[in-house]
Amino acid sequence: MQDVARLANVSIATVSFTVNNSKPVSPATRARVEAAMQELGFRRNAVGRALASKRTHILALLYPALQHRFRGTVVNFFTSAARTASEHGYNLVLWPASNDDELDELTSTGLVDGVLLMEVQVEDPRVERLQKSGTPFALIGRTAEPDALDFVDIDFEGTVAASIDHLVELGHSAIGLLDGGVGSGALRGYGPVVRTRGAFDREMEERGLMAFRLSCDENPAAGREMGARIRDEAPGMTALILMNEHAAPGLLSELRHQGLSVPDDLSILSIASSKEMAAMNDPELTVMSAPSIELGRRGVELLIDQLDGGGDHDRHALVMCALEPGASTAPPRAGH
Amino acid sequence: MQDVARLANVSIATVSFTVNNSKPVSPATRARVEAAMQELGFRRNAVGRALASKRTHILALLYPALQHRFRGTVVNFFTSAARTASEHGYNLVLWPASNDDELDELTSTGLVDGVLLMEVQVEDPRVERLQKSGTPFALIGRTAEPDALDFVDIDFEGTVAASIDHLVELGHSAIGLLDGGVGSGALRGYGPVVRTRGAFDREMEERGLMAFRLSCDENPAAGREMGARIRDEAPGMTALILMNEHAAPGLLSELRHQGLSVPDDLSILSIASSKEMAAMNDPELTVMSAPSIELGRRGVELLIDQLDGGGDHDRHALVMCALEPGASTAPPRAGH
Repeated sequence: MQDVARLANVSIATVSFTVNNSKPVSPATRARVEAAMQELGFRRNAVGRALASKRTHILALLYPALQHRFRGTVVNFFTSAARTASEHGYNLVLWPASNDDELDELTSTGLVDGVLLMEVQVEDPRVERLQKSGTPFALIGRTAEPDALDFVDIDFEGTVAASIDHLVELGHSAIGLLDGGVGSGALRGYGPVVRTRGAFDREMEERGLMAFRLSCDENPAAGREMGARIRDEAPGMTALILMNEHAAPGLLSELRHQGLSVPDDLSILSIASSKEMAAMNDPELTVMSAPSIELGRRGVELLIDQLDGGGDHDRHALVMCALEPGASTAPPRAGH
Repeated sequence: MQDVARLANVSIATVSFTVNNSKPVSPATRARVEAAMQELGFRRNAVGRALASKRTHILALLYPALQHRFRGTVVNFFTSAARTASEHGYNLVLWPASNDDELDELTSTGLVDGVLLMEVQVEDPRVERLQKSGTPFALIGRTAEPDALDFVDIDFEGTVAASIDHLVELGHSAIGLLDGGVGSGALRGYGPVVRTRGAFDREMEERGLMAFRLSCDENPAAGREMGARIRDEAPGMTALILMNEHAAPGLLSELRHQGLSVPDDLSILSIASSKEMAAMNDPELTVMSAPSIELGRRGVELLIDQLDGGGDHDRHALVMCALEPGASTAPPRAGH
C-alpha cells in the first residue's frame, strides 16, 4: 500500500479510501491510484477489506435441501438474487441447511452479513433463531405475523382474485381450487397454500360463486387419480384454478382418457407456476406465472437496505403473478 | 482469545489450534475451549481465520446466466455442490457471470479459493482465462482436449451405448437420435450434444444398425412440428433416443393426434433428463436420468483436492446416466 501511495503521489489514507470506497475520492485521484495499483500488480483483497470494515459482503441464501416446490422457477430466482447481490458489491452463498444446528453454524461463524430465508412456513422456528442471533435477514415468503419482519412474497391474495376475475369474465361461476396440500416435515403449514386457500374461500363467498376445494399430492400419478374422481368430487364445476403444476400432466391425461375436453368441458388456470411448465402440457396451460426474477431481486435489495441503510424500498413487498395466455381456458360449454 | 485461554486453563496457542483446526487437540481440551468460548460469547471469526490462512474457503460456481439446459436437474446439482462444500468446510458462492470482465473480476478480488465452471463448451475461452489467472478450477463438462484439466462430466458415450443396448434388447434395429442442436451464443458447440452425436454415429455404425439423426429446438412447439414430419424424415424408425426433454410433450401430443402410439409405433427413450421431467409426459417416459447429485459432489471434491491436496480422486470423472423404466419403450410392433 505504501508503494501504491508513493507511485500515485497520494497519502496511504487516500489509497485506503479508494480501495475500500470508504470516503469520496476525486475521479482524477482515483484514476491515479488505480493506475499505480495496476502497475504494481496490486490486487484489491476482498478478505483484507472485509476485515477492515468488519463486513464480509457475503449474503447467504438459506433453503431446505431438496424440498423445493416450484423447481422450474427456482433457478431463475437463484440467478436473479446472485446477480442483484453482485450489482451491489455482495456475493451470494448457497446454504442448503436442513436443521437448526446448521443454521446456528451459519450465523455464528461471522462469514455472512445477512441471510435470505426461502420456503418460509406460517410458523417458522428459523425466524426466532435468526432474531436471537442478531444476524440481519429477509424472508422470501411470510410467517403468520410478518409485520415486524422484512419480506418479499408472491401476492397470493391478489393473484387468486385476478384468477377468479379471468374465469368469471369468460362466464364461469362454478370454480374449484386444486392445490398440493399444506405439506409435511419442513414444509408443514406452507404459507403459499395456506394463503391461497384463505383468499379463494373469501373471494368466492364474497362474489356468491360456487366453490370447490380439492387437494392431491404433487406428482402426475396423483393428478391422474384426481382426474378419475373429479366429476364426482366437484359436480357442475366448469373451471379449475390449479396450484399444483406437477399434478397437471396426469390430470390432463386422465381427463382426455375420459373423453373430457380442456378447455371445453373444464377450463384450467395454473397459478404460481411458469410459462415453461405450462408449455409441458397438452393443451398448453394458461398460467399466472410466478415472479421469480422479481422476488430474487427484491429480496436481496431488502436485505442490503438493512445492511447499508438509505434504501427507499418498502420493508414489505408483494408481487403479483402475471397472466400468460395458453389454450386451457375458454367460456363454459353452452348448457352448463 | 486471552480470556478464553485463561478460562479454559490452556495456552493461547491451544485456543488457536482448536478454533482453526490447525493442529490436533484432545477431545477433553477441545470441550474445555469450546465451553469457555460459549461462556464468553466468543465467535469463531471466519474472516479472521481466512486472513490468517490466506484462504477464504469460498468456492464460486460459475454459470452463464439464464441459459441453462437441464433446468429440472440443476437445482439438485446446486444443492449437492453446496452441501459437499459445506461438509469440507467450504462455502459455495453462486456466480452467474455472463461475460469475460465478470470472470476477471471474480478471480482478481481474492474472494474465492477456486472456481467450478458449468455449461462448458467444446472450445471454451473461459478455461484459458482461468488458467492465466492462476485460480484453481474444475469443470462440470469437458472441452475438446480436457486431459490436462480437472473435470467431471456425464459419460455420454457410455450412456448412448447403454441406451442402444436397451432398445436393441427390445428388438429395435432402426433407431433415431433427436437432440436440441449444438446451440448458439454462449452455448455454441455445447459439449453434451457434440459428444452424444459422435457416440451415436459410432455405435450405430459399429453395430450395423439403421441410424436417423434429427434435431429441433428445445420447446414443445418445436417438438410438435417434429412430430408432424417425423414419419417422412425417418421412415421405418421404430425407436427414438431423445436428448431434448422440453420438446417431448409437444412431440408426444402430435404423435397421438396422428393416431400413432408410444411405445407401440415408436419407442422413446429420454436421456440426460430426470425422472421428474419424464413423469410430466403421457405416457411417462423411460429415462436415462442425469446424475446431477453425483456431478455436484464430485465436482466440488475435485476442486477441494486441488486446494487441500491429499485427495485420492481421479482428476477425470465420468458418471453414467441411470436407466429408470417408464412406459415409453417396448418391443416394436410385429411387421416392422
